[in-house]
Amino acid sequence: MARVVAIVGGGVIGGGWAARFLLHGFDVRVFDPDPEAGRRLGEVLDNARRSLPGLADVPMPPEGRLSFHGSLAEAVADAEWVQESVPERLELKRETYRAIQATCPPEAVIGSSTSGFRPSQLQQGAARPGQIVVTHPFNPVYLLPLVELVTTPANDAALVARAKQILQGLGMFPLHLRREIDAHLADRFLEAVWREALWLVRDGIATTEEIDEAIRMGFGIRWAQMGLFETYRVAGGEAGMRHFMAQFGPCLKSPWTRLTDVPEFTDELVDMIAGQSDAQSGGYSIRELERIRDDNLVGMMRALKRTGWGAGAVLRAQDARLRAGTALAQRSDAAAALPQPILTLARAVPLDWTDYNGHMNEARYLDSFCAATDRFMELIGADAEYIAGGHSYFTAETHIRHLNEARAGDRVEVRTQMLFGRGKKLHLFHRMMRGGDLIATGEHFLLHVDLKTRRPCAPSPEVEANMARIASAQAGLPWPDGAGSSIRAPG
Amino acid sequence: MARVVAIVGGGVIGGGWAARFLLHGFDVRVFDPDPEAGRRLGEVLDNARRSLPGLADVPMPPEGRLSFHGSLAEAVADAEWVQESVPERLELKRETYRAIQATCPPEAVIGSSTSGFRPSQLQQGAARPGQIVVTHPFNPVYLLPLVELVTTPANDAALVARAKQILQGLGMFPLHLRREIDAHLADRFLEAVWREALWLVRDGIATTEEIDEAIRMGFGIRWAQMGLFETYRVAGGEAGMRHFMAQFGPCLKSPWTRLTDVPEFTDELVDMIAGQSDAQSGGYSIRELERIRDDNLVGMMRALKRTGWGAGAVLRAQDARLRAGTALAQRSDAAAALPQPILTLARAVPLDWTDYNGHMNEARYLDSFCAATDRFMELIGADAEYIAGGHSYFTAETHIRHLNEARAGDRVEVRTQMLFGRGKKLHLFHRMMRGGDLIATGEHFLLHVDLKTRRPCAPSPEVEANMARIASAQAGLPWPDGAGSSIRAPG
Repeated sequence: MARVVAIVGGGVIGGGWAARFLLHGFDVRVFDPDPEAGRRLGEVLDNARRSLPGLADVPMPPEGRLSFHGSLAEAVADAEWVQESVPERLELKRETYRAIQATCPPEAVIGSSTSGFRPSQLQQGAARPGQIVVTHPFNPVYLLPLVELVTTPANDAALVARAKQILQGLGMFPLHLRREIDAHLADRFLEAVWREALWLVRDGIATTEEIDEAIRMGFGIRWAQMGLFETYRVAGGEAGMRHFMAQFGPCLKSPWTRLTDVPEFTDELVDMIAGQSDAQSGGYSIRELERIRDDNLVGMMRALKRTGWGAGAVLRAQDARLRAGTALAQRSDAAAALPQPILTLARAVPLDWTDYNGHMNEARYLDSFCAATDRFMELIGADAEYIAGGHSYFTAETHIRHLNEARAGDRVEVRTQMLFGRGKKLHLFHRMMRGGDLIATGEHFLLHVDLKTRRPCAPSPEVEANMARIASAQAGLPWPDGAGSSIRAPG
Repeated sequence: MARVVAIVGGGVIGGGWAARFLLHGFDVRVFDPDPEAGRRLGEVLDNARRSLPGLADVPMPPEGRLSFHGSLAEAVADAEWVQESVPERLELKRETYRAIQATCPPEAVIGSSTSGFRPSQLQQGAARPGQIVVTHPFNPVYLLPLVELVTTPANDAALVARAKQILQGLGMFPLHLRREIDAHLADRFLEAVWREALWLVRDGIATTEEIDEAIRMGFGIRWAQMGLFETYRVAGGEAGMRHFMAQFGPCLKSPWTRLTDVPEFTDELVDMIAGQSDAQSGGYSIRELERIRDDNLVGMMRALKRTGWGAGAVLRAQDARLRAGTALAQRSDAAAALPQPILTLARAVPLDWTDYNGHMNEARYLDSFCAATDRFMELIGADAEYIAGGHSYFTAETHIRHLNEARAGDRVEVRTQMLFGRGKKLHLFHRMMRGGDLIATGEHFLLHVDLKTRRPCAPSPEVEANMARIASAQAGLPWPDGAGSSIRAPG
């Protein structure tokens, strides 16, 4: 049976939650009295569909069903999670909980997207205070991993554990705060920077654009991978954190910020900032800026995935979670016993794989075939542990034929036929399909090598036996069209 | 004649400057009385050599010469730039300028790495105040683009223009401040965040690790590509910046930060932070953390280069600058008239191109051959403008042979022989060399297409004529070894 969540308030934040749940297979029921809610949520969902699925290097679950409901009671009736993202007015939020709790299951998690209120403030006067937690996400909600989970002693430990697990299932990083505090954690830093920035603009020290450059050309890039303390630890060098502190501690006495005070929020200041922001970014529509932002975030998060660091570690953990239970997680003996090409890759084409021709770049086909080869190696026992033990396969030769185009977001699969596998030689034929269309083939000749000498050598008996089992299972398959062929000189 | 710079103070920051200048072809003369200076600078240089050259997709100039000098006078005598990175003590800095100005050329730029002093403070009492500017970089100096250029009315406009140009030549983004202010621009934000973070740790609200996660899992990733204001502009959505301000302005009244005050810098606080930082990052040595950081920065900055945004736009501009004057910038008629394979790629293997086998991943060979094909297309007139006009080439078939391995940092070149080029058909043979070693070949069959119909069609007469010229120039070349061959079934 489908898992159901309710989204109460479908703006930019509620819509982001809806998209994240939907794309992870949940049925999503939306309640938002705004007549524009459907259109706005559709736009967020479009952005999410083009950017999120390609973050995974494994198949995503089928998308859930989205429905809009005129009554709050109907939307929340069967929900295991209710996400509240109504405007930041305490009384409105409390009223909303009263209405939600009148019909939602008592074991459902009610998460609030509030950035301003503490959970104890939200729980006050509720029928079941223990059901309400703060789950504060960051825009774009469908891409960024961080969600601040803030609870009170009124929350049951089991409910909190379930909330964490569901958030992790969405590929998020729930940061469970030790205790509640105004504005939670991250927004305190944002607020500090915002206040200082307002002073600098007001006093004519810098424009909004100059401030943005000061951030994204320097510490912004650092903070995408290590935070404040780890960055300073590295900067402190061999002398260590204590030395760094000794050096920079005295600066606290310097008049380096205006943060002993806050600027007055006059019309002039608003005009100044809005005008500078227009000059800086007005050449792009918000829709264009959103897509540029998502292209950038996907590219950077996938770069971190390669190193397995920060948000990239979260993406890797999510792949492992998504992969469990799919054909890609089948045990090697089961997968290898089938008399047909083996599924070795299933994924969406990510945003950062397309090129100036508007389609998946040719090199990304080899990325895909390379991942398919990795999975095949795993199936024959040449997995990460085997490689750490000092042996691996090196590709000696590759022949790719492009038969059709693929675009960002397309779901593609690779199935692999072993043409030969004995001793140090391995000859594979990958077919990449999109639905029923063959879009490319990759023929690969690999050699088993000793990673110390970098020379070919025989594989382990286990690898040899696994190749023999596949050879026998696939013995009846016809020789693939195009295998063994060369590029015909057209002259 | 080699261009000469002097580095006065060779710690983490001075060493980073030295590496950045050296790798861009300057001769670097270092003065630092610390007997450890040579070793420390060598370590920074090792890090820079492994990470910086691969950021470019074109050849870097040959590395300059590095020398250490026992006398400051000798180090600065012929320098066109003197970078001062001595400890943050005003009197020490002023003394240092007195010594520098006693012997350095009067037209040299003297840049200070100071994060704390205003240029007018540094200029006070100097023999030639107009020669001294603040050029405040960000760690790691060899990778991050930002450098805050702070000047005073005493500085000559021509010197400031020259300083900007030299910094841009290093691939940096000089942000010229409108006027001097304590701590310049970026550090005011860092300081605000640092103060807030100290409160949170001191009060037991969060550990250093939790704070780092709150940054790097959320707004840190955002800020690597858009800054504070552009991010909020997008978050504000269609309603615009003014609406966003109206919504969040009132928050300024909330008690959201502790920044009306600063925590006392007690031994207990230092112990607490150093201890938490050990628990968080103590599993890695500083050297390991530096390399992890650089791997991450290179991957993310190269992801931004793909979209041409923020730091990625800086990398693209730098490629254009580096490419000018190299064989890769030759006019098409000159390059196409040569009776030999054409140089179509020259670059260092970047950090993000290696895989678990410790060498350049197979898909990255196709990345390289793809870039070589792009350059070849440019040479025959199928450049970005031609593609924007609605026609391009699609690769139909590729055959790669791996003959040797390449590793991160290796400098590789691709030379291209046209096997056939007439009508809609183009048949290329790329050879990838590292010095005299052939490490791979790529044979590619491409079709000229109409980007609307996605079907093959004849190219423009100009492209046709350019292909004919290359065919005639290369007519005497022997058929390449391995061209037209297939993967031989080993069975």
